[in-house]
Amino acid sequence: MLNVNSVRFLDDLHRLREFGAAGVGKGVVRPAFGTADIAAREWLAEQMQSAGLEPCFDPVGNLFGLAQGQSLLVGSHSDSQPEGGWLDGALGVIAGLEIARAAHEAGGPPVSVVSFQDEEGRFGVTTGSAIWSGNLALEVADRQSDRDGVSFAEARAAMAHMSGDFVDPSRFTGFVEMHIEQGPWLFEAKEAVGVVSDIVGIRDMRITFDGEQNHAGTTPMHRRRDAFQGVARFNALINERFRNVVTPQTVWTIGHVRLHPDAHSIVPGRATFSMQWRDGESDRLRRMETIIRETAEEVAREAALGLSYGEMLGLEPVPMDAHLRAALNTSAEAVAPGRWRQMQSGALHDATNVARLMPAAMLFVPSINGISHAFAEDTDEADLVTGLKVLAGAVARLCA
Amino acid sequence: MLNVNSVRFLDDLHRLREFGAAGVGKGVVRPAFGTADIAAREWLAEQMQSAGLEPCFDPVGNLFGLAQGQSLLVGSHSDSQPEGGWLDGALGVIAGLEIARAAHEAGGPPVSVVSFQDEEGRFGVTTGSAIWSGNLALEVADRQSDRDGVSFAEARAAMAHMSGDFVDPSRFTGFVEMHIEQGPWLFEAKEAVGVVSDIVGIRDMRITFDGEQNHAGTTPMHRRRDAFQGVARFNALINERFRNVVTPQTVWTIGHVRLHPDAHSIVPGRATFSMQWRDGESDRLRRMETIIRETAEEVAREAALGLSYGEMLGLEPVPMDAHLRAALNTSAEAVAPGRWRQMQSGALHDATNVARLMPAAMLFVPSINGISHAFAEDTDEADLVTGLKVLAGAVARLCA
Repeated sequence: MLNVNSVRFLDDLHRLREFGAAGVGKGVVRPAFGTADIAAREWLAEQMQSAGLEPCFDPVGNLFGLAQGQSLLVGSHSDSQPEGGWLDGALGVIAGLEIARAAHEAGGPPVSVVSFQDEEGRFGVTTGSAIWSGNLALEVADRQSDRDGVSFAEARAAMAHMSGDFVDPSRFTGFVEMHIEQGPWLFEAKEAVGVVSDIVGIRDMRITFDGEQNHAGTTPMHRRRDAFQGVARFNALINERFRNVVTPQTVWTIGHVRLHPDAHSIVPGRATFSMQWRDGESDRLRRMETIIRETAEEVAREAALGLSYGEMLGLEPVPMDAHLRAALNTSAEAVAPGRWRQMQSGALHDATNVARLMPAAMLFVPSINGISHAFAEDTDEADLVTGLKVLAGAVARLCA
Repeated sequence: MLNVNSVRFLDDLHRLREFGAAGVGKGVVRPAFGTADIAAREWLAEQMQSAGLEPCFDPVGNLFGLAQGQSLLVGSHSDSQPEGGWLDGALGVIAGLEIARAAHEAGGPPVSVVSFQDEEGRFGVTTGSAIWSGNLALEVADRQSDRDGVSFAEARAAMAHMSGDFVDPSRFTGFVEMHIEQGPWLFEAKEAVGVVSDIVGIRDMRITFDGEQNHAGTTPMHRRRDAFQGVARFNALINERFRNVVTPQTVWTIGHVRLHPDAHSIVPGRATFSMQWRDGESDRLRRMETIIRETAEEVAREAALGLSYGEMLGLEPVPMDAHLRAALNTSAEAVAPGRWRQMQSGALHDATNVARLMPAAMLFVPSINGISHAFAEDTDEADLVTGLKVLAGAVARLCA
């Protein structure tokens, strides 16, 4: 059993929170490559050093704290959303730090720590771990820009003076990431820990209905080909038709809508909207896609609208490694008997990428009221400590 | 009977089209106070002079061609939409010119002509006639800006060197405006002329639903307070509930929708949209407003959304003058027996404003396929001539 120090762990979490502290409560503004993010990474590197690890920045800002020889990798990311909370990925990094430190103090087993860069997607989606895992080519990433037009190449130049080579993934035997749930399931069930069974798959595309732009005063209702009415009809139909296909975990979202010309007095001639859906099973994602396409075609036909689809983003569900999961399950039942569950992750995480390279698994702690990516994000400190102990117990078992 | 010259009338229409000719077919780009618009007005002033009228620009760019003494006023506007057709208001101005010219040649009756400025609303709504009629204060108009930030005060300064005082409305006994229908009714019925019974009233406001912005991957469907779903539900319900209230002429439109934060992966926390409805009866407009407010409140209550309303624009229906209408009806039946109708105008026109000052009436000719405010706008020349003759016949009757 690894003897982790929960006071030191919570202290470190609060010290990390000071980098970019903002907004109300425990709010943090620490987007990737900003001043606060780089300062936080420099502080993390010092803590790694003190914990007996060798700190290494790779060319894209990922920070590793390396134990000697083959080791288990534990961590997450320390960058935040433009308006984020103090935990999110920071929790997994500090938990990894405390476990590696405790392991070093105990003379083993060897545990390494990582804070991936730009998980929150200032420049893409889980940028740092996507590049490290080979999911995203560096040349492609370098051309990606943030909302202000700053390229990834320009941003990472700010850390060039401290960066070395990419770390060889073959030195790690597996990856375990602790993270807040970002949903309400654990909080509502008053449970302390969730062991992730798999990270759900995602489909995302744009759909466009083309109608006829016309005068909103002189065009009778029966003559209209109103593109917005197409979106509204499509939305109503899929909500109904998904009922026979989905589970309580399945989600779908129309989060973006753009009308043209978007004026009070003009019947919309065009409507483009986003359709995103997520589920743990590829087969269900496919059945939903069929419903989406058939429904869009039906709406277009009945309302005499043109229909076109944008490129579809498709990420398959990623199952977590069975051996690592078993260690987490056993540890969860030992530390928090009856107060944990196995569950899907509805959000993407660095583990999605790292699973390409090595066995990977994840552990969740509750999000109060299910809130994340907001200043109000928080978790009861007792649950944070329970999560740390479950993780430490699993690491001890895996390295035994 | 006034002896109008249909060849001269069509020639003048085609000559006016050359000012700002653009796009495809008979397209015109002649927005208010642009180079093409001012040149067209100078050319119109010359034609008025040649027709025995006294041309007068008022301080806001309205151009009058004045007959001596008390006279009937005939006209419309010669500015166009950013992408417009050759007819729209230009038709009514040139028809007025031909009738005034024919009347002058015949030694009477006295007919004056007008081309109002900025009917198409570069700076507002029917700006020139709204100021002249007292519906819009000049100081207020002067502060209004176009999409590029140019103020009305700056724009009208371009015509200051040619402008005199406002024309005294009491010199006119009434106003008759000929215009294209901008809708499909006459075209579909193969009729040549519509005598306008009234200009419909309009209500227009913004409605906002406030929900809860959340992660689109980790927020289960049953926990969402999705503001876009509120808009879609509201739309479906009013479409159903309006059925018991509306006539085939009633129209309603959601032409503008804005989601916040408008991102694929975020459950929309806010949705603001426009709701506009038009009808010829104030009472029906009120009943529709009641349905709209009750439905929005029901949707907000059931989906736990916040609800707020923007300021409501309300313009009452404007009935056309009975005496002028009777003259148009009689003339229409004489010129085009069985090929005309009485009808509402679903669009606003300069006559809406002028009706505050004097008896006012309107005459429509068909729009091919109902198209207007587009380069493709057109009307069969035979119908243009029929419209001219109906108008001339009515003027002769009114001045007899």
